[in-house]
This record gives sequence, C-alpha cells and structure tokens, in this order.
Amino acid sequence: MFSFENDYSEGAHPEIMKEMLVTNEEQTTGYGLDPYCEQAVTCIKEKLGAKDADVHMLVGGTQTNLIAIASFLRPYEGVIAADTAHIAVHETGAIEATGHKVITVPTKDGKLTKELIQMVIESHHGEHMVAPKMVYVSNTTEVGTHYTKKELVELYTYCKENHLYFYIDGARLASALAVEGNTMLLCDYKDCCDAFYIGGTKNGALFGEALVIFNEELKPGIRHMIKQRGGLLAKGRLLGIQFKVLFQDDLYLKIGEHQNDMAKQLRIGLERLGYPFLYDSITNQLFPIFPNELIRELQEKFVISISEKVNEEYSCVRLVTSWATKEEAVESFLLAVSDYKEKTN
Amino acid sequence: MFSFENDYSEGAHPEIMKEMLVTNEEQTTGYGLDPYCEQAVTCIKEKLGAKDADVHMLVGGTQTNLIAIASFLRPYEGVIAADTAHIAVHETGAIEATGHKVITVPTKDGKLTKELIQMVIESHHGEHMVAPKMVYVSNTTEVGTHYTKKELVELYTYCKENHLYFYIDGARLASALAVEGNTMLLCDYKDCCDAFYIGGTKNGALFGEALVIFNEELKPGIRHMIKQRGGLLAKGRLLGIQFKVLFQDDLYLKIGEHQNDMAKQLRIGLERLGYPFLYDSITNQLFPIFPNELIRELQEKFVISISEKVNEEYSCVRLVTSWATKEEAVESFLLAVSDYKEKTN
Amino acid sequence: MFSFENDYSEGAHPEIMKEMLVTNEEQTTGYGLDPYCEQAVTCIKEKLGAKDADVHMLVGGTQTNLIAIASFLRPYEGVIAADTAHIAVHETGAIEATGHKVITVPTKDGKLTKELIQMVIESHHGEHMVAPKMVYVSNTTEVGTHYTKKELVELYTYCKENHLYFYIDGARLASALAVEGNTMLLCDYKDCCDAFYIGGTKNGALFGEALVIFNEELKPGIRHMIKQRGGLLAKGRLLGIQFKVLFQDDLYLKIGEHQNDMAKQLRIGLERLGYPFLYDSITNQLFPIFPNELIRELQEKFVISISEKVNEEYSCVRLVTSWATKEEAVESFLLAVSDYKEKTN
Amino acid sequence: MFSFENDYSEGAHPEIMKEMLVTNEEQTTGYGLDPYCEQAVTCIKEKLGAKDADVHMLVGGTQTNLIAIASFLRPYEGVIAADTAHIAVHETGAIEATGHKVITVPTKDGKLTKELIQMVIESHHGEHMVAPKMVYVSNTTEVGTHYTKKELVELYTYCKENHLYFYIDGARLASALAVEGNTMLLCDYKDCCDAFYIGGTKNGALFGEALVIFNEELKPGIRHMIKQRGGLLAKGRLLGIQFKVLFQDDLYLKIGEHQNDMAKQLRIGLERLGYPFLYDSITNQLFPIFPNELIRELQEKFVISISEKVNEEYSCVRLVTSWATKEEAVESFLLAVSDYKEKTN
Repeated sequence: MFSFENDYSEGAHPEIMKEMLVTNEEQTTGYGLDPYCEQAVTCIKEKLGAKDADVHMLVGGTQTNLIAIASFLRPYEGVIAADTAHIAVHETGAIEATGHKVITVPTKDGKLTKELIQMVIESHHGEHMVAPKMVYVSNTTEVGTHYTKKELVELYTYCKENHLYFYIDGARLASALAVEGNTMLLCDYKDCCDAFYIGGTKNGALFGEALVIFNEELKPGIRHMIKQRGGLLAKGRLLGIQFKVLFQDDLYLKIGEHQNDMAKQLRIGLERLGYPFLYDSITNQLFPIFPNELIRELQEKFVISISEKVNEEYSCVRLVTSWATKEEAVESFLLAVSDYKEKTN
Repeated sequence: MFSFENDYSEGAHPEIMKEMLVTNEEQTTGYGLDPYCEQAVTCIKEKLGAKDADVHMLVGGTQTNLIAIASFLRPYEGVIAADTAHIAVHETGAIEATGHKVITVPTKDGKLTKELIQMVIESHHGEHMVAPKMVYVSNTTEVGTHYTKKELVELYTYCKENHLYFYIDGARLASALAVEGNTMLLCDYKDCCDAFYIGGTKNGALFGEALVIFNEELKPGIRHMIKQRGGLLAKGRLLGIQFKVLFQDDLYLKIGEHQNDMAKQLRIGLERLGYPFLYDSITNQLFPIFPNELIRELQEKFVISISEKVNEEYSCVRLVTSWATKEEAVESFLLAVSDYKEKTN
Repeated sequence: MFSFENDYSEGAHPEIMKEMLVTNEEQTTGYGLDPYCEQAVTCIKEKLGAKDADVHMLVGGTQTNLIAIASFLRPYEGVIAADTAHIAVHETGAIEATGHKVITVPTKDGKLTKELIQMVIESHHGEHMVAPKMVYVSNTTEVGTHYTKKELVELYTYCKENHLYFYIDGARLASALAVEGNTMLLCDYKDCCDAFYIGGTKNGALFGEALVIFNEELKPGIRHMIKQRGGLLAKGRLLGIQFKVLFQDDLYLKIGEHQNDMAKQLRIGLERLGYPFLYDSITNQLFPIFPNELIRELQEKFVISISEKVNEEYSCVRLVTSWATKEEAVESFLLAVSDYKEKTN
Repeated sequence: MFSFENDYSEGAHPEIMKEMLVTNEEQTTGYGLDPYCEQAVTCIKEKLGAKDADVHMLVGGTQTNLIAIASFLRPYEGVIAADTAHIAVHETGAIEATGHKVITVPTKDGKLTKELIQMVIESHHGEHMVAPKMVYVSNTTEVGTHYTKKELVELYTYCKENHLYFYIDGARLASALAVEGNTMLLCDYKDCCDAFYIGGTKNGALFGEALVIFNEELKPGIRHMIKQRGGLLAKGRLLGIQFKVLFQDDLYLKIGEHQNDMAKQLRIGLERLGYPFLYDSITNQLFPIFPNELIRELQEKFVISISEKVNEEYSCVRLVTSWATKEEAVESFLLAVSDYKEKTN
C-alpha cells in the first residue's frame, strides 16, 4: 500500500546509506568534531557562498527551531509567525516551553507579508507586552506554498529596518530550491536572512537539519545551547556523512527536483480530472479537495490523510512526495481517482 | 591511531547496519508508530518481564534524562545525584534548563547510598527549599563503578519509603549487565526502580536510548514531552530497527561482554605492570594512573584523554572499550605501556 | 487633574490604612503564617461558604496568574483564553515564560463561550500539539463586560465534562459582584470553578490578590510554587491585614458598588449626550467612543487614555472608576463633555 | 513574647508609615512611573554618586534575584555562589526555575574568595558544561559575616579579568553599611560590582528592594523582565515612597546602626557569659551556641529559632535584630541567659 502521507516514510537516499556503511567501522571523535562534519560544513558553505557562516548540524526540525529561537532571543522577546506555522501548531508548544511567545498572524496562504508583520509591531509596545524580535517563515510553507526571492528580500529588508531577526525554517528547502522558475538559489540565502536551516530529514537523509547562522550577533554560545537541549549527537559524524553526500555534488537539488516532478504529475493529473486545490502549490505538498467517498476508496489502496474538512461532503487531503516516490505510484493513484470519477459520473 | 577515548567512536554493530540497509526503502508511518518500533518494544518488554512497562525510544542520553526528569517532577521538585553524575556535570545544565535543581552529593566512588540520600532529605524542609523528589543514579557510573543488585534494591526500598522516584541512567547498561558475577539481570530492573533507560549509543547502536517507565504515575504525557523537547524522531523506525536487533536475541548482552572483556584484558595487563587505578572498575571504563611522560608517549600512538590530574607527575587517564574494540588494539596498548616501563626502569 | 486612567491610581481604602497603622509595631511570624493571614483566610472562606478551600494571598495579578497556571498544568498543557485576555496580551508573555502556551480565541465581547472552547478542543489532538487543559476567563473582563451565573455554570459544566480546569481571574471581582442584578454571589464561586482569585489591588487594597483553590487536585505544592516564583511576601501579614479588613464585614462589596455607581453615572451621562460605547459594560470600566478632538480637550483636564483607534476621527477611550472616585470628578467630567458637545453643535 | 527570629517581624519604620498615610489619597500613574519613584531613584543615585545607574524597585528579594539573574545571563550560563547562599538554599530553586544552574562552593564563613571562584572557572570548560558567567555574594552574608571594601574590590577585579558579572545581594545592606569600622560606603558600590540590590524589607520598609545596575550591558530589557516575572507593582508608588523616606536623609544608615547596636549588646552580653559563636559576626545576625536546655527555656519567653544542631547537647541559634528591636528586649534576653547560667553553675 503506497503512502503519500509524508516525505519521511522511507529511509535515506541510497548514496547516503552507501557512505554510512563504508565509514561504519572508522573511529572518529564525537559530537560533530570529526572530519566528516568538517567536510559537510565546508561543502555547505561553498554552496552558500558564505565562508563566514556558522553551520551546526542537528537531528530534527523541532529541535533546531527551539534551540535557534531560545538562543537568539532574550526571555521577554517573541517570534512572529503565520498561524499555520510549524512552530505555532505542530511542535507541542516547544517554543513556549523555552519561555517565548509565538505571536501568530492569520494569513491567506501560509505566508507572512511585510504588512502582516507591521500590524504586529504596531500593536506591541511597552513593557506590559512581549517584545516582537524575530520573524519566522517556512520555505516551503506548511501549506505547500513557497516564497519568491523578491518576497524574501522584502521581508528581510523590513526586518532589518525594524530590528527584527529573520529566520527561515527550511525543513522542505530542497523542494523550495527546485520549484519551477525559482530564482532564490542557495547562495542567495546569505542575503535574505539572519539564520535558516537546511532540512535533511524530509529531503533524503535519515535525519538531520543544518542550522546556518549568518548574523554575527547570533553566533555565540550555540553549541552550549545544542548540548543543553539534548541536540548534540554523540556519533555526530552521522550528520556529517549525510550532509556531505547531499551537498558535495548536487544530490540535494536533484532530490528536490524529483519530489517536485512527482508532485507535478499528481497535480496535473488531478487538475485534468477536475479536482480543485485548497492551496496553490507547485512544491512537493499538494492539497486537493476530494469527495469524502473518494477519500475512503483511496484509503483502501493508499496511505493518505485528511488535512482538513471543507464541508459535509468534501475534505482536503494532503499528498506528499519524497526522494523515493516512484512514477508508478503516482500513475496508480491517478488511475484510482480516474476510476472513481468515471464510476460516479 | 586507535582510540580508547570513548565508546561512541565507531558506527553501529554490523547486524544493525545490515537491518538498516535491508529495510531502507520500505515505507512506514513516522514518529515511532511503525512496526519496527512495535517489535523492538515487544522484545524489550519480554526481556524485562514487564508487559505493562511503557517503552519510548529517544535519540540521546541528555535528551532522555531531561525529558524524563521534566516529565516526572513538579516545578519545585529537585533530583538528588552524585556530584560526578552526568546530569550534574556534563549536560550543560540541561536539567536546570527544564527548571529543576540537581541536588548534588559528594561520594567516594560515584555511587549514592541510602545514607547519602537521607542526609539530603533531612536537610530539606519547608517551602523555602526545593523538595527532593527523585533519585538519579547511573549504572555503570561515570567513574566506571557499578551497582550490585543488593545496592539497587536497598536504594529503591529507601526511595519508596520516602516517596522518592528512583531513576537509573543506563547509558552504559550493557557493560553493567555483563559485569562478572553480576546478578542484576535486565528482568530485575522492574523491581528496582520507577524508570530507567537502556542505552543504545554507547552499546553498539548508531544512536538511541530506550526509556522504560514502570511506575504508572509517571507514564502519562510522555509522548507530548518527547515531541515538545525535540526528541520525537520523524523516521522513528530507525530506533525501532536498532533496538529490535539489539534485543531480539542476545546481541545487547554480547556487546556488553565484549566491552568488559576488552577492558579486563587492559586492566589485568596494567595491574601486572604495576599501575594503580583511581577507581575500582570492572566495567568498560578504566581509570589508570600513569606518569605524565607515559601519557605523552601513548598519545603519539593512541587517542586517550586525561580524566584528571593526580599530582604534578601523575594523571588519571580514562580508557574506554566499545563493541568494536579489537584484541590487537588492547595488546598493542599494553605493549606500549610495557615498553615504557622497561625503558624507564 | 483627576484621573480615570485606572483603578490603581490611589492608595488603599482608609479602613485598611488604619489597620496597617494600628498593627505596625506588632511582631508576627513571616511569610503569611501570622494571625492576620489566618483571620483573613477564615473570613474569606466564610464568605465563600467553602471551609475546605485553600486560600493563598499574593502580591499582584500577573504573579498570581503565572503561579497558578504553572502549578496547575503539566509542561505540555496549554490554557485557553480570549484573545483580549490579560494573560494573552498584557503580561509580557508571563505564562509562556513558565513554559505554557496560551491558546487564544477571538471573541466579540471579551467573553469565552462553550462553543469557542469546543472549537479549540476539536482542533487539538495528538502529541504534536499542545494539550488544552485549562480555561481562563476574567470576571469582569478586560473590556468591561461580565459573566452571568448562568454563563459561568455552563462554562464550568463544559470544562468538567471535558476534563479541563476552569480558572477565573478576579482582578476586578468587586465590580463583578456588585453588578446590578448580579446573582453570582461570592458563595457561588465554589460551584463554578476549580480555582479563582479575588483581586485586592484594583478593589481598594494597596496590593494583594487572594488565590482560592477548590479542586483538591490543584492544591498540593502551591506554597513551594509561590516561594519559587518570588511571590511569598516576607511581611506576609500585610496581605492578611488588608484582606481581613476587606472581608470581615462587607467592605469589599461596598467598594464594588461604589465603583459601579460612579461608572453608571458616567455611562448614563455619556449616553444622554449621545456617545456610543465600543463594549456594552455595566461595570467599573467604560469604553465610550469620542471624537479625537474631544479626547484632546478632555486630556487637558483629566487623565484618560485611548484604548483603541476606531477610525480616523474617532477613538475609544477607557474610563475606570475606583474606590476613591468622587462624584464631583464624574460630574466635572460630564460637564466637560457636555460643554464640548454644545460648543460643536 | 519578644521575637529575635528575624528582621521582618514588624511593619515599617514610623516615618515610612507616616508618608504612606499622607500620600494615600493622591492619584498617581502606576507601575513605578510616578513622582515618588522618580524622587526615590534620584535620592538613591545621589547617595551612590552614580547618576547613570539604573534603579528599579521590586517587592522582594527572591523576586529581585531571579529577575536579575534571568535577565543578565544567557540560557547556558551559570552563577557561582557560596553553598550557604540564599539563592542556593532558601529560594526553592528560583534560579533553576529560570533555567540557570547555581554552581555552589563550600566556604568556611559564607564568603567567596578569588581562589574559590578560580577553582570553579578552572573546572568548567567546553560545551558539555555550564558556562560560569556571574558571581553572587550577599553582603551581609547569610551567616552574619560581611565583606570588607578590600575583599569586594578584589572579587570585582577578578571578575572583570575573567569576564564574569559580579552581583551583590544587599538584603541586609543597611547592617553591612553600618558595621563598625566599615569603609565600604554606598558610593563605593559603583566601583565594586556590575549590579546589586539595596534591601528594604529587612531594613525598615514594609517591603521593597532596589535593584541597581551599573554595567551598561545589563541594563536593557529589565522592565520587561520585571513585568514578565510578576514583579511590577501596580501601585508602584508604594515602593517610591518607602525608598524616598529611607534615602532622602540618613534613615537607611541609622536603621543599620540601630540593628548593629542592638546585636552588639547581645553579642557582648553573651560573650561575657561565656557562650561561643558559630560564625564571627558583627552585623545584625548572631549565631551563638547554646545548650539545648537553655534554648528550651529561652523559647518560653522569646521567639528564637535553631539554625543548626552542633552536637547532641548543643545547638546554634540565630538571633536577629531589626529597626524595631528595643534595648529592653535585649536586656531581658541577656538576663534570661544569665539566670540560666547561674542556676546551672
């Protein structure tokens, strides 16, 4: 039964597994101070065109977000995010557990704008209110949309003018980089944010996220923070090996392209069959609206999950493709939808 | 250059790597709800003889300790530990970062006793002081010593009588289980503590620690806590696969035996050569006292690190063996020491 | 220049000051264990008709809220509140600083309803989301509205059915109790919530809030929490003396009546002059909508502050009456408004 | 029954009460932004000779310590303190509840030295350990001893050289200032620490502690922190009025002198009667060692409490004098001791 439930259903890309195996019996020092981590960091900095950046590899996304935010902010400062943001909804209050308020803003497409941030800034003043000090966006977003270069530049410019840190959650960065027509290259991130993370888990790794810090103010103490919050992996080379494989050549980008290609085939197929989408996405997450009956039938053959109820008869489903999604799976899914369509027409 | 620096210098035991590879392209659900995790938990519970135990697999030791303690204690409660305890010294204040005081006690051998705990209890009263509510021990300890069954039973009995939770950090549990003459079997832990964790990272896994909770009071909410503190691995099956391999047969115990055997050869060899030890250890960590000159010579051929200075001429070195330590490495180390001895006599 | 800015502009009611002076040189034990605190607690329990309630007197409202919530909730549990709630807006993230998410809900009048709470409950499930466990309301609310007995009973019933704690912030409880036609007496609170606090600061005391806990589950450890968060007053009798004076007779209620009477005169006067109100309030906080020009003129003679902008020409002003508000001040304010009206007609 | 139990048994000095009464019905703005607070701050800065200092008045000592430390330190930084320090023992883990480790050091007299601090610094390195960043001392100390100017200068010099903040808890500063032969004047503090607080509660006020920050780095955000931790008093003028009365003339110093004089009479009397002291104190706290039988007899006439057990027959008692301690009380206490002495000789 093929699963379109998420992009972490399979293990790692075979090239990663190969390297894990080859290096398995070598002895290295622990905690990310080994040669593989060094090589990975060098590769990443080269792709970023940012030799002064700090790169720290962590195990997971929630961990990375909570450590970054707890490290960057003073205790009374808050972080502004879309009300669909991962940190606002799906991290069990991880940010609040570090003491910081997530100031949420409703959006139409999961994306923050200058105007939305400004509204928060203008409504917060004085010591009786949290001081907004950071803006959090995800690229791609939790609803499959993505930011253009122009949008990110605008947000970062606004943040700098208003003394806000700008942080990008790149859990699905490979898909964002591979978006058709995208001009926001990896080497552009250094000019568009104070810090961001390059997701590994959802882009072909077994696990791992690389936190990149450009802003000098935000660099000190981060390894202490990582250790304190339980994020310093003893056999740290496992992260180094994976990110090295992803970034020494173009594997990371290729994975993003594959994810998007598979999603595109799904999208075009569903559009042809006349199904609308809740969000306008060209990334590896799609949100088609299906009749509940169709969903039940599909769930007999595929693992898919409902994202939200639309009305009594229709629901929005989230379909996600990964490095491992096969064309046959896509075709077989479209066939199942098409069969239903025919049957019910 | 062979390293005796620690027991997380290599990757995973080959049987684990094999299973990781074989299962790599399978699709499973995330976050530890997959069949491999289920199988691992079943294996562990069987070995524990505790079908009602809750078993949660996490990535690392600091993470496990901080999540367990933050989950088990109310905000004003503290945890009693030896002043050499990992949570007291080497977790960057991870426990305090969750809001809880670690109440430390000096010990002679890294081990708590009933009497030491009682002193803490008697000196804490009223709402102006932290309420001691939990006792933390490591088995084996940070200085290579271990607890006997009798000692653990006594500590747990005392804890129950005094309404304290008793928690055992099993980062090096394989070595503790495999100690010569040990009668404290895995199935005895259910009768000796409220919760403990079975270390994977230092016992042949790539990473992973299995938190086991026996006390019903301590079970609720733990998955929320794991997620909130960034400990819920997306591709959770990686933990399931590893613990399944370690516990479906006797691999875990065999790894402990190998570690201890290698350490024993080292110990006997060094004793024969007349070197004393700072702590009396029969586990996989040894603390011989060497002349500084010898240490410098050894460091040209081996990775070893100084644990503490003894006096101007002598220092204590920590030697650690792992699942991967080879007899030749031990022999070559002893030869180097013996050469030095001869040369300087 | 008379101030209608808030209800904490003056010192304490003269009867409180008298008792403070009379007892000043007596020696008592500290930290709320003195006879005055005992007497105050006895008086309060009698008025509550709840001899088993726990009553703890603290210094301020933010302190009381943060201590109560941090004490009542487990780390991953959140508290539901109106998006105008004091804990959501005006406590500088005090609740988040204890690690807990405030889950906010937009309302039309600052009041939660069963339906609004239900929406939160239904949208929160699983360990990736905060677990809503507590409902917070203020009576009177931050926008001057109040809850009827029927409403509070309904909310509490819903909470009990859904295993939620129900907590009422009574910073302005005197005004709520004294509302015209109110049937929600002090002795009804024991049947309508798990815990609440009786505000002193805004109801005639120098400072002080009495936290009342009815639910047995929520009682343990609270004095430890109070001390830990810096809320245990050394000369605790100061709280005892004040609450004793407020509750040994009917002074508390009388203060509420006076506040509401003064506000009523203001309200009727402004209604007569044709000014609308942003919120429909019969408590000691009024939110009239004035032309900006009128506001500027009034601010030359009175201390008043703008609550929010309504449009380019009109703003909403918050007027608050206190135990010390004099009829002459009200009359003089109405006269100033009336003068403006005449002048501009 | 006269109490020597502590220095917060009575209300406030009559001059304070007088000013509280006179100003009671005035209207002022809240939260410490009123003219009385301004005047108090001006008086304090003049006495300090530090017009650039920031002065914030809070309600209590634990509150002040936790807010200062949480504001000054980054999450992974710890504070070094004597193991008898108030923050280490008697604040219910308040500092740990803000996430910071208190690194304790045994001392012989409750006082830190350069050497003791150095031992901590030398044993902490790397990201696996808390980073010591602040030194906390109390003057006078918890065991009645005090620091000389030379000692404080030496500590501060060491701290600056080692990039540590130096913070002094002045809960009993009046007594420290009034110590016979003391040359450490209030105006010297600006040259001896980064921040300190001037205690009110134990020096004649109803409550209140004035946090003084000299170091520019430590100034930002403190009012946000105060509000967030529940320390911003609504009727803030109560703090302003009290500190104004204490510091506009020499009342604060006079109170310290009275406390010390009363303690001196006690001390000399007890020395004459041949009783030894556990700590060598010339401040307002004395720690005589009495036979248990004497203690029992004294407790029939006086409120005194045992500080610690010395052996089976003897215990150490803590005697504290306050602004309100009367000579007759001292004489009557000495008489009771002398009677016992005679009777048992």
